[in-house]
Amino acid sequence: MKQISMTAGKIAELVKGTVCGDPERTITGISGIKDAAADQLSFVGNKKYEDQLGTSAAGIVLVCKDLANASTENRTLIVCDNVDVAFAKLSAMYADEPPVYPVGIHPSAVVDPSAKIGKNVSIGANAVVEAGAEIGDGAIIGALCYIGHDAKIGAATLLYPNVTIMFRCTVGAKCIIHPGVVIGADGFGFVPGPQGLIKVPQTGIVTIGDDVEIGANTTIDRARFGKTVIKSNVKIDDQVMVAHNVVVGESSILVAQTGIAGSAELGRGVILGGKAGINGHITIGDGCQVAGTSSVARSLPPGQIVIGTPAESQREFLARVALPKKVQKLDAKIKELEAKLAELAK
Amino acid sequence: MKQISMTAGKIAELVKGTVCGDPERTITGISGIKDAAADQLSFVGNKKYEDQLGTSAAGIVLVCKDLANASTENRTLIVCDNVDVAFAKLSAMYADEPPVYPVGIHPSAVVDPSAKIGKNVSIGANAVVEAGAEIGDGAIIGALCYIGHDAKIGAATLLYPNVTIMFRCTVGAKCIIHPGVVIGADGFGFVPGPQGLIKVPQTGIVTIGDDVEIGANTTIDRARFGKTVIKSNVKIDDQVMVAHNVVVGESSILVAQTGIAGSAELGRGVILGGKAGINGHITIGDGCQVAGTSSVARSLPPGQIVIGTPAESQREFLARVALPKKVQKLDAKIKELEAKLAELAK
Amino acid sequence: MKQISMTAGKIAELVKGTVCGDPERTITGISGIKDAAADQLSFVGNKKYEDQLGTSAAGIVLVCKDLANASTENRTLIVCDNVDVAFAKLSAMYADEPPVYPVGIHPSAVVDPSAKIGKNVSIGANAVVEAGAEIGDGAIIGALCYIGHDAKIGAATLLYPNVTIMFRCTVGAKCIIHPGVVIGADGFGFVPGPQGLIKVPQTGIVTIGDDVEIGANTTIDRARFGKTVIKSNVKIDDQVMVAHNVVVGESSILVAQTGIAGSAELGRGVILGGKAGINGHITIGDGCQVAGTSSVARSLPPGQIVIGTPAESQREFLARVALPKKVQKLDAKIKELEAKLAELAK
Repeated sequence: MKQISMTAGKIAELVKGTVCGDPERTITGISGIKDAAADQLSFVGNKKYEDQLGTSAAGIVLVCKDLANASTENRTLIVCDNVDVAFAKLSAMYADEPPVYPVGIHPSAVVDPSAKIGKNVSIGANAVVEAGAEIGDGAIIGALCYIGHDAKIGAATLLYPNVTIMFRCTVGAKCIIHPGVVIGADGFGFVPGPQGLIKVPQTGIVTIGDDVEIGANTTIDRARFGKTVIKSNVKIDDQVMVAHNVVVGESSILVAQTGIAGSAELGRGVILGGKAGINGHITIGDGCQVAGTSSVARSLPPGQIVIGTPAESQREFLARVALPKKVQKLDAKIKELEAKLAELAK
Repeated sequence: MKQISMTAGKIAELVKGTVCGDPERTITGISGIKDAAADQLSFVGNKKYEDQLGTSAAGIVLVCKDLANASTENRTLIVCDNVDVAFAKLSAMYADEPPVYPVGIHPSAVVDPSAKIGKNVSIGANAVVEAGAEIGDGAIIGALCYIGHDAKIGAATLLYPNVTIMFRCTVGAKCIIHPGVVIGADGFGFVPGPQGLIKVPQTGIVTIGDDVEIGANTTIDRARFGKTVIKSNVKIDDQVMVAHNVVVGESSILVAQTGIAGSAELGRGVILGGKAGINGHITIGDGCQVAGTSSVARSLPPGQIVIGTPAESQREFLARVALPKKVQKLDAKIKELEAKLAELAK
Repeated sequence: MKQISMTAGKIAELVKGTVCGDPERTITGISGIKDAAADQLSFVGNKKYEDQLGTSAAGIVLVCKDLANASTENRTLIVCDNVDVAFAKLSAMYADEPPVYPVGIHPSAVVDPSAKIGKNVSIGANAVVEAGAEIGDGAIIGALCYIGHDAKIGAATLLYPNVTIMFRCTVGAKCIIHPGVVIGADGFGFVPGPQGLIKVPQTGIVTIGDDVEIGANTTIDRARFGKTVIKSNVKIDDQVMVAHNVVVGESSILVAQTGIAGSAELGRGVILGGKAGINGHITIGDGCQVAGTSSVARSLPPGQIVIGTPAESQREFLARVALPKKVQKLDAKIKELEAKLAELAK
């Protein structure tokens, strides 16, 4: 991490925050709240972590408005509207530079002469680019990547090493795709036949919008016909599985190990928690939120927040979780009634 | 997609269906029921999607028998015994040709001189084939694939790019293996020792039958000793995990993100829904079906259909789901009884 | 598998077991209890598999103390303190030798001149090692592996083919990493902004201790800042997802398809069953055990054994599973009470 000396006053200016305590307090680096030293800045973005603030040695701490009145003994606070955004800004300033992927085609890469390579493109060592593929200006194709026949990679998109983009699939501009991702493997379709299962040809493609990020080892399958669609600004975590003919609406967020079955359609701004499952052929409305490890079997209208398997409202889920205690109470009441009744019968 | 002009009559002949409406109605392409235009053919294979039939602009629609009496205004219907099979046939006809992987060893591939390469084999760019490996006639080894020492790949098997087959494992004929698949990594076995966990050597292999398909980023581990077995005609989706010494019976279907723990044995024609989990050392009988996201802890006799965690019958599962309502009713009844009893006591 | 002739007496000496039956009984190989022939050794490590002992043709069987009195008709038993450890020892003796990865840099590998390569290192075909990377003495970097800028791989560590280690991440000594593993992809962090989701820079690294094993296609994300930490002697199975800033304590075991959300901290010797999920920002105490497919939402003190979603004690879980039957009984009791009350009212 870089060492840069800054005062609380200067930092508050940068992140548009308000200083509580000594504005001349100076730090040279940043760190997590537990590990931070007196010459480092850290952050507490939620009142529930207030106790970590008390025990931290950090010299400057970015805090949310709920913590504006916390003690400034031994430290300076900077109160921010959005601590995450503020810290991200500083984190980027103090971060070591990421590696530079040099422009040009590495001599060990195998690029078909018919591929169209844009300006200022970097193609890494031992990468393979097949016939008819198109790589947009400023794109980076990492080492050991595979770009299939007639696939298209948009301008300024970054493919980290070891990404596989299969034939005819398209990736938009300014996307980031992490290692191990597979775009455009066959969808999973078979029909019973007289001599066993018969493969249903998967003749479509995957099409991915702009500003999409896709985490390590995620797989997005090509359509049975037509397109599997990931719209712009969608953010996908690691080990997510998107089946054939799925549509994921703009700015949706799919957390790690989520699975979406074939032909499901997600609206805009949908959030799926880690390990969530979405049934095939259903519709998840705009802005729906599915809690981690939950499974949604039926379509959801916009704005629903659901949890559990099968997914239900949070109120219903909590009632279900509390069921054993409720049943125990009923049991006790019944015993009481039995006793009273026996008494009365006498 | 190809443009091919065909009449309803001609299509009905091809798929052995029955025309309802104008047999001269002509289409030039195919599409999904929502997106299809007047010069395209689509399909509705299930009566529950009947409303999509009503609003579709498709010129010709393949339908199941239940929909034989649907309106033929503005369209021609073709009634089929099996809509999926019929549409798959047409879909294959209209599909763009898949890329051709040229016969021969790409100059950038690294193939050990002791490897036995069959006739008409294609080995892609930057692939690696180790000593003693055998590649059957007509097999395709995609770019960036790794074929380990003494591994065997059967005739006419297709490995898409970036597949890893570890040493001594065997893959049968006419298999299709998608990118990111790992066959033959070590099984997971450790025993506690005085200085920490001690690795149990995983000295067996994985053996895969004929006509097996394996989806992207699936992993199948080598046996502790002996074999992990995937029998012929098994179809495996993306991101499935098969542990050491598992046996998967013929024509079984493992949907995405399924996990099968060590030494479990699945019979013929077993279907595991997406994200299902199977405990180690248990037996799943022929033809069992496990619903998506369900976990099976104990052995199942043949033909069982189970759901939930721990898995139970569908009847039991539905009763469990309905439990909160049932308990509420009991609560109301108890209150009634209490009131009556109080009344009576007076 | 090797053919080595050994008597029961000799084997008992090797594994420090006690012979029951003929000490001159001889085998030439080993096998699973179901498949073993008369000239093979097998094992039964748990009394619940006793019936398999009865029907096995194995000439010699390693058994646990509970089975010391089983019949020795047609076979010799060797009673062992720890059957798993004993069998692992024999399994290693009879195993075919694993492939040898030759010392040196394969001519097709692309190794930056600034990388520091230790003594007796093997770098496989088409591997890529970026600038500033360090490979310790005796390490094996498999074919098609990617070692990012300034990454460090410890001495005697084995990377199987097709592993991706991203920039600046560090792997300790004597680790084993299986194909498809991705270490150091970006953590998943976004904040809502005026024009959509804004990426939170992931500027930290992943650091992995000594004697760690990581299964196929597992992903461990780099920290938002600071480190994601896998301590020494941790064993990770296939398709596990470890998010940014997680800490996994020494000798913990993460079974396949487990997911650990961001900033969670696991103590020493924690065991997570297959498909388990751990919430972000929580602490799992030393020695906790989480059953397969369970989800832990809140911190756990040391030594807890939990199961279910949300996770609870085994006693609570079993009571929850039994709830439908309990409710049915209450229902019957209420009906009885109603009848009695009606009788009384008359």
